[in-house]
Amino acid sequence: MEKLQRIDAYWRAANYLSVGQIYLLDNPLLTDPLAPEHIKPRLLGHWGTTPGLNFCFAHLNRVITERDQEMIYIAGPGHGGPAAVAHAWLEGSYTEKYPDITQDADGMRKLFRQFSFPGGVPSHVAPETPGSIHEGGELGYALAHAYGAAFDNPGLAVACIIGDGEAETGPLAASWHSNKFLDPYHDGVVLPILHLNGYKIANPTVLARIPEDELVKLMEGYGYRPHIVAGDDPATMHELMARTLDVVFDQIAEFKNGQAEHLPMIILRTPKGWTGPREVDGKPVEGTWRSHQVPMGDVRGNDDYRRLLEQWMRSYRPEELFDTDGRPVPEILQTVPEGPRRMSASPHANGGEILRPLALPDFRDYAVEVKAPATQHSEPTRVLGAFLRDTITANPHNFRLMGPDETASNRLSAVFETTGRAWNAETLPTDEDLAPGGRVMEVLSEHLCQGWLEGYLLTGRHGLFNCYEAFIHIVDAMFNQHAKWLDACHDIPWRRPVPSLNYLLSSHVWRQDHNGFSHQDPGFLDVVVNKKAKVVRVYLPPDANTLLSVGDHCLRSRDYVNVIVAGKQPVLDLFSMDEAIAHCTRGLGIIEWASNDADTDPDVVLACAGDVPTLETLAAASLLRRYLPDLKVRVINVVDLMRLQPDTEHPHGLSDAHFDALFTPDKPVIFDFHGYPWLIHRLTYRRRGHHNIHVRGYKEEGTTTTPFDMAMLNDIDRFHLVMDVIDRVPGLSTSAAHLRQQMSDARLRARAYTREHGEDLPEIRDWTWTH
Amino acid sequence: MEKLQRIDAYWRAANYLSVGQIYLLDNPLLTDPLAPEHIKPRLLGHWGTTPGLNFCFAHLNRVITERDQEMIYIAGPGHGGPAAVAHAWLEGSYTEKYPDITQDADGMRKLFRQFSFPGGVPSHVAPETPGSIHEGGELGYALAHAYGAAFDNPGLAVACIIGDGEAETGPLAASWHSNKFLDPYHDGVVLPILHLNGYKIANPTVLARIPEDELVKLMEGYGYRPHIVAGDDPATMHELMARTLDVVFDQIAEFKNGQAEHLPMIILRTPKGWTGPREVDGKPVEGTWRSHQVPMGDVRGNDDYRRLLEQWMRSYRPEELFDTDGRPVPEILQTVPEGPRRMSASPHANGGEILRPLALPDFRDYAVEVKAPATQHSEPTRVLGAFLRDTITANPHNFRLMGPDETASNRLSAVFETTGRAWNAETLPTDEDLAPGGRVMEVLSEHLCQGWLEGYLLTGRHGLFNCYEAFIHIVDAMFNQHAKWLDACHDIPWRRPVPSLNYLLSSHVWRQDHNGFSHQDPGFLDVVVNKKAKVVRVYLPPDANTLLSVGDHCLRSRDYVNVIVAGKQPVLDLFSMDEAIAHCTRGLGIIEWASNDADTDPDVVLACAGDVPTLETLAAASLLRRYLPDLKVRVINVVDLMRLQPDTEHPHGLSDAHFDALFTPDKPVIFDFHGYPWLIHRLTYRRRGHHNIHVRGYKEEGTTTTPFDMAMLNDIDRFHLVMDVIDRVPGLSTSAAHLRQQMSDARLRARAYTREHGEDLPEIRDWTWTH
Repeated sequence: MEKLQRIDAYWRAANYLSVGQIYLLDNPLLTDPLAPEHIKPRLLGHWGTTPGLNFCFAHLNRVITERDQEMIYIAGPGHGGPAAVAHAWLEGSYTEKYPDITQDADGMRKLFRQFSFPGGVPSHVAPETPGSIHEGGELGYALAHAYGAAFDNPGLAVACIIGDGEAETGPLAASWHSNKFLDPYHDGVVLPILHLNGYKIANPTVLARIPEDELVKLMEGYGYRPHIVAGDDPATMHELMARTLDVVFDQIAEFKNGQAEHLPMIILRTPKGWTGPREVDGKPVEGTWRSHQVPMGDVRGNDDYRRLLEQWMRSYRPEELFDTDGRPVPEILQTVPEGPRRMSASPHANGGEILRPLALPDFRDYAVEVKAPATQHSEPTRVLGAFLRDTITANPHNFRLMGPDETASNRLSAVFETTGRAWNAETLPTDEDLAPGGRVMEVLSEHLCQGWLEGYLLTGRHGLFNCYEAFIHIVDAMFNQHAKWLDACHDIPWRRPVPSLNYLLSSHVWRQDHNGFSHQDPGFLDVVVNKKAKVVRVYLPPDANTLLSVGDHCLRSRDYVNVIVAGKQPVLDLFSMDEAIAHCTRGLGIIEWASNDADTDPDVVLACAGDVPTLETLAAASLLRRYLPDLKVRVINVVDLMRLQPDTEHPHGLSDAHFDALFTPDKPVIFDFHGYPWLIHRLTYRRRGHHNIHVRGYKEEGTTTTPFDMAMLNDIDRFHLVMDVIDRVPGLSTSAAHLRQQMSDARLRARAYTREHGEDLPEIRDWTWTH
Repeated sequence: MEKLQRIDAYWRAANYLSVGQIYLLDNPLLTDPLAPEHIKPRLLGHWGTTPGLNFCFAHLNRVITERDQEMIYIAGPGHGGPAAVAHAWLEGSYTEKYPDITQDADGMRKLFRQFSFPGGVPSHVAPETPGSIHEGGELGYALAHAYGAAFDNPGLAVACIIGDGEAETGPLAASWHSNKFLDPYHDGVVLPILHLNGYKIANPTVLARIPEDELVKLMEGYGYRPHIVAGDDPATMHELMARTLDVVFDQIAEFKNGQAEHLPMIILRTPKGWTGPREVDGKPVEGTWRSHQVPMGDVRGNDDYRRLLEQWMRSYRPEELFDTDGRPVPEILQTVPEGPRRMSASPHANGGEILRPLALPDFRDYAVEVKAPATQHSEPTRVLGAFLRDTITANPHNFRLMGPDETASNRLSAVFETTGRAWNAETLPTDEDLAPGGRVMEVLSEHLCQGWLEGYLLTGRHGLFNCYEAFIHIVDAMFNQHAKWLDACHDIPWRRPVPSLNYLLSSHVWRQDHNGFSHQDPGFLDVVVNKKAKVVRVYLPPDANTLLSVGDHCLRSRDYVNVIVAGKQPVLDLFSMDEAIAHCTRGLGIIEWASNDADTDPDVVLACAGDVPTLETLAAASLLRRYLPDLKVRVINVVDLMRLQPDTEHPHGLSDAHFDALFTPDKPVIFDFHGYPWLIHRLTYRRRGHHNIHVRGYKEEGTTTTPFDMAMLNDIDRFHLVMDVIDRVPGLSTSAAHLRQQMSDARLRARAYTREHGEDLPEIRDWTWTH
């Protein structure tokens, strides 16, 4: 009972500190009557969800202390910042991270002032907030992050507060099923707390307004044991919550030791803006959507509102909670855990602190032997698969491979020689490669793959997400948020570097001829390069050995988003392992054996990025060598797309001198690109020779057809490249007019064959370089 | 019983036709033994889901006929094309749409050959497929589309087959709750059929492997009355399905007349690849993931496989199903409905056929009076709100406004004077503006908003989706798919134009200063312009009257995706209604009163697109007029972003001559842009003066701060624009060095004030133009 009083005091302190952050510039302890100048001019904060967040945090602390339970806290509700900041300050970790914000009246004043204030901290549980791996800005990902954090952390419990607004989103609705992928023995647990405060911004929420028996069935249907904690009387609620948490953590123990099949979860039903003003201007506020943000605005100008605010803040009895210097009194801190057991100081929520680097096998050992370049084929992702297999073997608890059921389809199947697909539901004799705790996580939800991986990375582990290129757009928004998180972390000294988020986009636009138009979209790259140069990297390795080199590089890197586009279909082997390493280290370079401009200036540069454009470019170079042997052609392949930017724009950027030396300042450059052509213009528009760069790429032409027909539909094919050269190199349009016609005829012939036979001409399918 | 035999015969016919499409080039009736040349060289199809889709279609036809029930069919599972095509052919509508594909042996041969074949039709239920409004390429949206189609169609039943793969996606998981937004009286109904065939590509599915009682609870928790139809013996299953459908449609009738609160749904459990080969090469195929695509490959080269295929196809007893000319025998067509009752010929699935144009009020009536430009403020979205209110009043069953709980926040609240928010769950006295059948649909899921609206538009109705700009990225992938759908429809003569998909992105990047970095992202525009010029339009009206004009235009348009970016915060009124109409009709133009280059060439062009950039540009022009009165400045505002492209690239594009006349070919252009700056370069890189265009825009700098500080962080502010002018106009860098310093100081002063006071300098906040 006494313990509950202490929890209540702690809760009141957190609520007091939350209201203070939203409203006050000064006078933090209310030592003076509230005056206009104590109030922020713009009131930017969200009270509605805060008391519930504080309530959970306060009670979970008791569990941590009593059971010595390692725990982190994920605040799903948007704008839950005031709560998380309040706890970090009460637990002392805020001051440890930001020594300027002391644990006294002056620190409290600064804490209040900085919240949602220019030069201060955001209203979300942002990277700046100690103890957070989850922002709650864009809603939907709390539960997926929670599970990602729990995987391979057997001692950890992840408490995940899910707002009833967020619960309406698709990603969250799917995330409940993450329990089918959790291994009770080798993973930690997630405790979902569905916080029903009834309203989102201006509307009731679905889950708060369905009959309770339906809600219970829904949670049972999702595979949880629901417990309801509902009410608005604080004393009753403290008792109920404490009792429920004791049951819940006993059930978690049963789950962990195999006595129970299902994890518990809590349905917490409290008024929105609980303990806030009941009414403002005669309208109900507590328990309604009106307390979503600030229960009353213009507190500066309106004396009544200001009195109401003071009343409200004093209702928490600050004089019992803080001493005259503004320090939290010892009584309220008795339930606060110590050191790294504090949720605001857990090393799991600053994953770089506990990161163990991957033990990587030597990628050179997986090299394809290349006797003569461009004369034999390999499937790059299949080659990478063997490297990933041994990476998994060497890192059994530290690395996961995510994908929406496409690991085998993307030809990474070698991984199944050492591990299975994580699966904790029913299995049948016809199943293959399922295993609790398997390193491969396959669920037909790109949102879950991304969310799990983000949670896993931010808690200091490593991974790779393999996905069809077109459907990675499903997580555009999640990528944006993660890139912004990493960007912000760069400026926060105490945030330690975490492993990069690695995408492998296989089954890409040029090899989705069989799946049709809906599967053809290379635009994720455009989304990616909108984010800060310090965060994003894009690689287009054209063959197996360059993919190995790039893959190794990305798995070693920190704090980036690395996008690798590499095909699963057989492509020509272009580089020996040593050449591949050199080429990837440079990021781009001349393919000497395909060029004939040695010791002189080229007449034309054929540049390419991506496996299929590289193939077509080489074939075009070969045609030119045959039909126009005097034309000096330079072939350049680009692996690291960021090299095209000026060095002033991106750390990987080439200097202008270097760029000009390669691409020339004045010769036509025919650039065959994997994605939408504008991206190359965007990256190169500041280059001297930009007006000479003619880019071919995907121009949104597609259907169900053959690979070469896809190339022709978008004019990235070998014949069209030769036509482009003839059109662009001065003099050729007359002297090579016949060749141009020949190329045009070749296209017609290729298409006619395709329409007739349903496959590409054998000489195109099987083309290799003749040395 | 006899009826069930006819249904079985119809089912066998559909299965036969499906297998034929996947495998055969010729010999459609198996009149000769199967030879290699009868087999397609590349086998591109998905058998696994097909027999289940055919089973449902066959049985639903009986319900349609017996109850004279209007129905459409949404095939959620990916690659369900063979099934939908087979039914359209059997029902005769395929031949009606494609007279070349006759309902006889020759037509059947063509039907088989064209499937997933170059020059033919895709493997999905694509736009080319009669009776479809849903592609099933990218998974997750079937149920949202189904509900969208049902809204305001009281006589319609939408049968929606949901694959157990798709059921794992986030958007689908959230879509079940759409029933809380359905009005039993004024809307139609949705019959979800969750088709559990157990596997996705290579993996079991979650919902197929949870205990049946959990699955039933899950569906009850979602608010449905589940019915299980499970088995593999066709005769038993026919009986069970027929009986269940009778119960289900009785329950639907109860729901419609208020006797039941919940809609029924069906859990259909059948083997994957049902009725296909049991085993291939000694490995089980029917009922396993091995039947996902083609149960056996290389049928051309492998005699055993070919024999197996022939056996398989003959197991459907084609001689009983088709006469010797290849025509379906009358017996199997007895359960096929007639005319527009056929699901493959429903006008609802070709919405343009039944489209009623919106009755639009005259937007001029809502105009803000502008006495002198840029001297007074309005909130554009609030002004638009009144126009939308009266649009809703005039179109009570034909128009919906979607948004994730942001209609009021986006200041469109006037609509609540005439309608409510659609809501069919519990209401409380404190709720506001809830009503069954309300025209405003708010759910905290951008996926649902988009999916509902797509379904609503494709069935011939109208709508607008208002959303925070940053979070519209959540539906990037859905936008892509819808744009591709519209693109494909342009080339299909029988697809009639449907109302455009209209986005209103309010709460945009420059006014998310208070919500912080996670809410700041204008990159949706970059995603949009990657799609075909014939499909996408982007508008950035800078004030209330231009927003009215653009809004009216977009609501009248067909077959486009229109993106409107317009703020909800007060902005300067720039254009009288007449001027606004002229300006929007031109798409861009010189703001005469802000320019001082009349009758001469300008020294510099200040261009702008977006409300905040326009404000800053005007303020910069004003500063220049004051401090550098001799400098000839031309101010150009761009409303229709596509005007910047050459007329060869986009139907809205300006000719080069027109572009040069406006922007000059050789003077510096300082372009202040709403979004990421590269987009302007991308749109203008072919222009003669492109190297003189200097673009400012969002460069991914942001935090919680003030609006003007946001502008300064990204260098789009008035002071920086003046500095840019000084840097770019020859001679000014020396002669105006002092002014440049002054501007730089002004920035420092503005930031210092912001940090001190938490708001912008009053003279910046309240700036207006001095005439």
